[in-house]
Amino acid sequence: MKEEECKVLLDSMKACPIDNTFKIIGKKFTIHILRNMQLGQSRFNEFLDSIEGMNPKTLSARLREMEKNGIIERSVFPGTPVKIEYTITKKGKALKPILEQMAAFSMQYYSKEVFKDGKPRTFKQVFEKPPEILK
Amino acid sequence: MKEEECKVLLDSMKACPIDNTFKIIGKKFTIHILRNMQLGQSRFNEFLDSIEGMNPKTLSARLREMEKNGIIERSVFPGTPVKIEYTITKKGKALKPILEQMAAFSMQYYSKEVFKDGKPRTFKQVFEKPPEILK
Repeated sequence: MKEEECKVLLDSMKACPIDNTFKIIGKKFTIHILRNMQLGQSRFNEFLDSIEGMNPKTLSARLREMEKNGIIERSVFPGTPVKIEYTITKKGKALKPILEQMAAFSMQYYSKEVFKDGKPRTFKQVFEKPPEILK
Repeated sequence: MKEEECKVLLDSMKACPIDNTFKIIGKKFTIHILRNMQLGQSRFNEFLDSIEGMNPKTLSARLREMEKNGIIERSVFPGTPVKIEYTITKKGKALKPILEQMAAFSMQYYSKEVFKDGKPRTFKQVFEKPPEILK
C-alpha cells in the first residue's frame, strides 16, 4: 500500500482494527484454543490435555469470552453424562488467515525450532502447494 | 488445506509455529508498536504519546524484547541530546501480513466500530485495491 493510499485508509477510520482484533484474540491461549478447534478438537478436556500450561479456570474464562465475542459456539447434548461441544462460528473461521500467517512467520524465521528437518518453508509452499515439499 | 495434507504438515513439525509466533508478538502493545513503526514512527516518545494505556516502563520492556527477538533495531545518533531511533528489521517486516490480516478481520466483522461510515470492507478491497472503495 502506498503512503497516499494508507492516509486515505486511516482517514476513513474511527478506531484501529488491529487493536480491535487484538482485544478478541490477544489473551493468552485464545489462539491456541482456536488452533486446536481447527484441527478437530471440540471438548473441554481435549483442550485442557493438549494445551501446555493452561489450567481449567483459564480455559473456562477463555471459552466464555470467545463465546461472548461470537467466534465459538457452545452446544449442550442431553444424556448421561451431558455432552458439551465447542465449535467455531463463521466469524471465528474468518480468523484463520491470521493463524496461517502466524504459522508462516515461524515456519520461515524459526524453522530450526519448528521443523524436524530444520528447513524453512514459505507461506506459499505450505498453504498453497502442500504437501510435496514437506515430504 | 485437506485433512491428509494437514497431517503430513503436523508430522513434519517438532514445535507449534503459531505458539512460537505468539511468544514473539503476543504480549500487550508489541503489535501496537510494530503497527506504529510501519506507519512511520521511530521514537520512544512517539510510541508513548500515541499508544493508549501504555506506560514508559512497559514500552521500554517491549522495545528490549523486540530488539532481542530481532524484529526491531535500535540506533543511537550522537549529539545533544543523543537521538535514539527504532526501525523494523527484515524479519520484523515479515510480520506485516499478520497485522494486515488482523486489520482485515475487524474491517469486515467490526465495521461499525472501525469505520466512520460503518461499512464493512474485505481484505481484498482494502489491501489489494485501495483507495477507490474507501472514498
